Amino acid sequence: MFKTFKKLVGRSEPKPVSTIAGVKTILHIDSSILGPYSASRILSADIVSKLKAAHPRAPVIRRDLVADPAQHLSAAHIAAFQGGDISDAALGKDLAKGGAFIDDLFAADLIVIGAPMYNFSIASQLKGWIDRVCVAGRTFRYTPNGPEGLLPAGKKVFVVSTRGGVYTSGPATTLEHHESYLLVVLGFIGLTDITIVRAEGLNIGETAKATAMARAKAQIEALAT
Amino acid sequence: MFKTFKKLVGRSEPKPVSTIAGVKTILHIDSSILGPYSASRILSADIVSKLKAAHPRAPVIRRDLVADPAQHLSAAHIAAFQGGDISDAALGKDLAKGGAFIDDLFAADLIVIGAPMYNFSIASQLKGWIDRVCVAGRTFRYTPNGPEGLLPAGKKVFVVSTRGGVYTSGPATTLEHHESYLLVVLGFIGLTDITIVRAEGLNIGETAKATAMARAKAQIEALAT
Repeated sequence: MFKTFKKLVGRSEPKPVSTIAGVKTILHIDSSILGPYSASRILSADIVSKLKAAHPRAPVIRRDLVADPAQHLSAAHIAAFQGGDISDAALGKDLAKGGAFIDDLFAADLIVIGAPMYNFSIASQLKGWIDRVCVAGRTFRYTPNGPEGLLPAGKKVFVVSTRGGVYTSGPATTLEHHESYLLVVLGFIGLTDITIVRAEGLNIGETAKATAMARAKAQIEALAT
Repeated sequence: MFKTFKKLVGRSEPKPVSTIAGVKTILHIDSSILGPYSASRILSADIVSKLKAAHPRAPVIRRDLVADPAQHLSAAHIAAFQGGDISDAALGKDLAKGGAFIDDLFAADLIVIGAPMYNFSIASQLKGWIDRVCVAGRTFRYTPNGPEGLLPAGKKVFVVSTRGGVYTSGPATTLEHHESYLLVVLGFIGLTDITIVRAEGLNIGETAKATAMARAKAQIEALAT
């Protein structure tokens, strides 16, 4: 029965990093619920454009976690992980999606994550994604020296951090569980080369918003790709 | 149209704290996906039993966020919040559920939250609940001096914190975005009287688990109710 599950969640061996020698693969993830009004979606698209300009042949894997979220991890998922029957078609499809999320990470060389702050942390959709990609034996393993990330070295991550207030200085600094959390949990599975592209203070006023967006766009312009 | 939405998300005025003078109301929330194997569910039920013993007439509002989760906050929710039509029956039902989550918090005097750590933070189901109860104008408001929680003073919160590793001391301390996050975000809506009931190191081994559970149970025994 474990074999059945393995088929559903994807390969037991990670995909090769690139399917064509020298061609990089881009993974583009968004988690803002604001659609066309989303600052993080504008900036993540800008980063992908910049990466595409540098790597014109690069395929882009797209994951819109709001338009097409995975289910919350559940008791039924755990039962399936442990070899239980998968009688529910929707669960089977969702297990396959979680497996594909992991395949995405193995396949991608350049990973762009649009991550707005909601209530001092990430969107529930992005937490749901994290709970699906942190899988012992696939993206991390336990060793006598502690857990170890299993995603191969050499992947670059760009996190678009957008937030209504200012959290890098001032009284709200201690409330922040957003960028700091993503750095920790992505590092845990082996993604340690992370660049934060930040636009904060977006809800303070029009001028502050325009300044923050211009600064983020300038940062993207200057990114090493 | 805003009126239609108001009807769906509940009262414009908060419920009275207790419907019967002197009778407290208990809110019991769980977010573990492990069902009967869940340490946090065992401990949250223990706390509710202790509270019921002290307040035998107290009604208990039950929210199992795994058996019956709310939807992720989405663009459709935001449109409805802003007065848009609610044509989708499932969305209407889900908006009503989010409104009921807020009513729960106004109604309850004693709030018990089972919060296992998943991947250094809370379950996505609990983040989804947080994204539904943090609503400007209902549970917090902006003032010239910064945001202010709107849940009335006097509510006691018991957070059951369960985690596989040890995060209160040692090398993993900096990874923790779990208890520290809940303290921040619950405080933001006015819930500042929070007692953490903790069982950590649950995946280190049977002895460590038994010790942690015994310690948490002793802490519950000694709780002021």
